[in-house]
Amino acid sequence: MKTSLKQNLAINFQPISQCVRVSFNYDVHFTRGLFKLDNSLLAQAIAADGHSAAKPVVAVIDGGLLQYQDKLLEKLLAYAQRYQDVFTLSSEPIIVPGGETVKNDSRFIEQIHQSINLGGLCRHSYVLAIGGGAVLDMAGYAATTAHRGIRLLRVPTTVLAQNDSGVGVKNGINAFGKKNFLGTFMPPYAVLNDFDFLTTLDDRDWRSGIAEAVKVALIKDRNFFDFIQTYAEKLANRDMDIMERLIYRCSQLHLEHIAGSGDPFEMGSSRPLDFGHWAAHKLEHLTNYSLRHGEAVAIGIALDSTYSYLTGQLLRSHWQQILTTLKILGFALYLPTLTEQLDRPDHPHCLFRGLTEFREHLGGELTITLLQGIGQGIEVHKVDLSLYRQAILMLQDWELSSVLSN
Amino acid sequence: MKTSLKQNLAINFQPISQCVRVSFNYDVHFTRGLFKLDNSLLAQAIAADGHSAAKPVVAVIDGGLLQYQDKLLEKLLAYAQRYQDVFTLSSEPIIVPGGETVKNDSRFIEQIHQSINLGGLCRHSYVLAIGGGAVLDMAGYAATTAHRGIRLLRVPTTVLAQNDSGVGVKNGINAFGKKNFLGTFMPPYAVLNDFDFLTTLDDRDWRSGIAEAVKVALIKDRNFFDFIQTYAEKLANRDMDIMERLIYRCSQLHLEHIAGSGDPFEMGSSRPLDFGHWAAHKLEHLTNYSLRHGEAVAIGIALDSTYSYLTGQLLRSHWQQILTTLKILGFALYLPTLTEQLDRPDHPHCLFRGLTEFREHLGGELTITLLQGIGQGIEVHKVDLSLYRQAILMLQDWELSSVLSN
Ligand SMILES: NC(=O)c1ccc[n+]([C@@H]2O[C@H](COP(=O)([O-])OP(=O)(O)OC[C@H]3O[C@@H](n4cnc5c(N)ncnc54)[C@H](O)[C@@H]3O)[C@@H](O)[C@H]2O)c1
Ligand SMILES: NC(=O)c1ccc[n+]([C@@H]2O[C@H](COP(=O)([O-])OP(=O)(O)OC[C@H]3O[C@@H](n4cnc5c(N)ncnc54)[C@H](O)[C@@H]3O)[C@@H](O)[C@H]2O)c1
Ligand SMILES: [Zn+2]
Ligand SMILES: [Zn+2]
Repeated sequence: MKTSLKQNLAINFQPISQCVRVSFNYDVHFTRGLFKLDNSLLAQAIAADGHSAAKPVVAVIDGGLLQYQDKLLEKLLAYAQRYQDVFTLSSEPIIVPGGETVKNDSRFIEQIHQSINLGGLCRHSYVLAIGGGAVLDMAGYAATTAHRGIRLLRVPTTVLAQNDSGVGVKNGINAFGKKNFLGTFMPPYAVLNDFDFLTTLDDRDWRSGIAEAVKVALIKDRNFFDFIQTYAEKLANRDMDIMERLIYRCSQLHLEHIAGSGDPFEMGSSRPLDFGHWAAHKLEHLTNYSLRHGEAVAIGIALDSTYSYLTGQLLRSHWQQILTTLKILGFALYLPTLTEQLDRPDHPHCLFRGLTEFREHLGGELTITLLQGIGQGIEVHKVDLSLYRQAILMLQDWELSSVLSN
Repeated sequence: MKTSLKQNLAINFQPISQCVRVSFNYDVHFTRGLFKLDNSLLAQAIAADGHSAAKPVVAVIDGGLLQYQDKLLEKLLAYAQRYQDVFTLSSEPIIVPGGETVKNDSRFIEQIHQSINLGGLCRHSYVLAIGGGAVLDMAGYAATTAHRGIRLLRVPTTVLAQNDSGVGVKNGINAFGKKNFLGTFMPPYAVLNDFDFLTTLDDRDWRSGIAEAVKVALIKDRNFFDFIQTYAEKLANRDMDIMERLIYRCSQLHLEHIAGSGDPFEMGSSRPLDFGHWAAHKLEHLTNYSLRHGEAVAIGIALDSTYSYLTGQLLRSHWQQILTTLKILGFALYLPTLTEQLDRPDHPHCLFRGLTEFREHLGGELTITLLQGIGQGIEVHKVDLSLYRQAILMLQDWELSSVLSN
C-alpha cells in the first residue's frame, strides 16, 4: 500500500511558487600605483578564491587612456610576469577605443568573446577591464555573457567611473541609437580604483564625474553637499586630495544605495540615483554625445532643481546654492538644445521626449526624482511641462547673467 | 567645529565590502489549452503586476512546433484579441526554426532585439517564448539582455523544456562551436506548462525529456525513481497521465534544487543537476547534434552509473535497475562514438575530452556527480580513466546482449 502510494506520487498540479535568492559579494579597493610591482592588491584579488593554479586573464584596455599613459601596457606585462603564479594574460591585451564609440559597435564585444574562447577561459577566469565608464560598460557586458558570466575585474580610470559607473552592477552597450539598449545587471568580482590614473584626465573629464557626486549628495547626504560646496573651487582647480575624498564618499553612497534599495536589478520603476538623468540622457543623444555624461547630468540637476523650486518643494536659497556650486565647479547649465521644439513634447528633438524615453527604458509608470531639500529626494510620477518650460528659461537667464558677470 | 569636521569627511580609504542581494520570484503553472479563450491563466500572469495599461508583448514561436500545430498562430492572435485590455502583440509573432539550429545563429537574437526596439518595449513589457528548450534558451537570452532584462514568459512545449530547461534560470546560445558559450543567468517572469502541446511530439522528443527525470530521481529522490521504474513501459507507450505526473515532480525537484542549492547562478564549481552531463554534452557535439539532448543524457547516466558501480560505490542490483529502466524507456545506452580515440584523452574526438570541456565551462576544479545509491548523488573531483574505459565496454556488451535478447 505504502509503496504504491509513493509510486503514484500525490500530485495536485498546483502552481509551484519559486523564489531564487542570489547574493553577490565584491570589494571596492582604493589605491595608488596599481601596477607597481610591489603593489600586490590586484594579484591578491585574483588569488583570493583559494585555488592555486594561475588563472587566465583577458585584459581590455581603453585606448584613449593609453594615449596619455603610454607606459601602462609595459607595466601591465611586467606585473603579469611578476605575479605569474597567480595569473597569466591569455592573449595580448585587447586595446579598444575610449569613450562612447566603444559602446556603439558590437564588434568589440565579439572581439572579447573570441579572445575568451581562444584562451579557453572558464567561469572562474577573469576579464580585467581598464578604462573609463564606456570601456567598463562594454567589457562588462562581454564578460557577463561569456559562459553566462566570467569574473569581471574593473579598473576605472576616470572620476565618473571610480565614483559611480565602475562600482555598480550595470553593464551595457548602445544599439538602435538607444543608450544602453543591450546589457546585463551583474556585479563585478572586484573593483580597483587607482587615483593615479586621474592625473592625465583632461579638464572636462575631471569635472564631469563630479556631477554624479553632486547628484547623490543632493538626494541623500546634505553633509556631502556641504563638503562639495566648500571645496568647489579647489575641485575645479584639480586638488587631488579633495578629489580622492569626493570619490570615496560618492562611491560609498552609490554602493549603499544599491545594496539597500531592495531593488538592485531595477525590477521596479523607482531609480533615485537617476536624479537629473532623464534630461541628461536626452541631451547626450541630442548633442550627438558631444556633451560628456557628467556635463549633461549637471544640466539635468540644474533643471530638476529649478523645477523643484518652481513647484514649491525646494527653498529658493537651496536652489541658488545648487546652481552656484555647479557654476563654481565649471559646469555650463544651459545650452540652446534645451529650447528646441519645446512646444512639441513628442518631437524627437524636444527635450521632453526624454521623459517618455526614460520611462520606456525603466519600464512601468514614469518615475523621476525631485528635491524636497538638499540631501532629500522625492519621487514623482507626473510633471507639469509648462513649469518645466519656465525652468528652462530661468536656466537660460542664469547662464546669461553669469556670463555677463564674468 | 562640527561643520568643518563634517565638511572634511572622515575618510580612511579602507576597501568597501559590498553585498548585493537579489530575490527573483516566479510561478510555474500547469494547465491545458493555454490559448483557449476561456483560459485566462496567461492574461492573469501578465495582469498580475497591477498596472492597468495593456502591455506590449513580443511573441517568439518555435517553427517546428507550428508544423505540427498549425492552428497555434490563429489561436494566439484570437487570444490576444480577447485579452486586449491586458496585452497587445507589438508585432507579428516571430517564427524561428526549432531545435539546435536556432541556437547556432546569432541573427535570431538580433531579430528579437529589433522587434523589441520597434515596439518600444520597456523592462515591464514581455517576451512570450513558445517552444522547445532550444527556442526558449535563445529567446531568453534575447529578452534578458534587452534593456538589461525584459520580462520573460516561457511556454515550454516539449517534455524536456517543461520538466527541466524551461523552469530554470539559464538562457543561452552556442558560439565558436561551443554549447551555451553565450548566455545569462536570469529567471523567467513566469512559466506556463501546457500538457496539450506534448501530444504532437515525435517519439524521440517525448522520450528524450524523460532522461532528465531519471537523472534528478537518481541523485535526489528514490521514490521518484521507483515511480519511473514502475511506469517505464507506460511512459514508453506515451501514457499522458503518467507523463504529467512525471513532469510535475521533475520540475518540482529541479526548482527545489535551484532555490535550495545556495548557488543558483553557479558561481561555484558544484553542479549536481548535471549528473551524466559531462559525457552528454560531448556526445551531442561529437554526433553533430544528431542525438537529442535527453538521448545523450541517458547514455551519460548509464555511463556514470556504471562507473559508480565499478568504483564500488553503487550496488550491482541498483546499477542493473538503472540500466534496465533506461532500456525499457527506449533509450540506446551505447554508440560507437563512445570508443573513438579512447586512448588519447586530449584528442578532440575522444569522449574524455568532455571532462576538460565540462570543467572549462563550469570553471574551477573538475566536479562531477556520481551515485552512492539510487536517490543519492556524490561529488568527485578526480576520475580513473581506465575504469571509465571499462565502463564503456560494459555498456557496449550490455547493448549487444539486449539487442540479441530482443
Ligand atoms: N554602468 C553604469 O552604472 C553607468 C553609470 C553612469 C555612466 N555610465 C556610462 O559611463 C560612460 C561614461 O564614462 P566616463 O565618464 O568614464 O567617460 P568615457 O569612458 O567616455 O571616457 C572619456 C574619455 O577619457 C579617456 N580616458 C579614460 N581614462 C583616462 C585617463 N585616466 N586619462 C586620460 N584619458 C582617459 C577615454 O579614452 C575617453 O576618451 C557612458 O557611456 C555612461 O553611459 C555607466
Ligand atoms: N536552459 C537550461 O537550463 C537547459 C537545460 C537542459 C537543456 N537545455 C537546452 O534545451 C535544448 C533542447 O530542448 P528540447 O529537448 O526541448 O528540444 P528542442 O528545443 O531542440 O526541440 C526538439 C524539436 O521538437 C520541436 N517541437 C517543439 N515542441 C513541439 C511539439 N509540441 N510538438 C512537436 N514538435 C515540437 C522543435 O521544433 C524541435 O524540432 C538544448 O539546446 C539544450 O541545451 C537547456
Ligand atoms: Zn550618471
Ligand atoms: Zn540536461
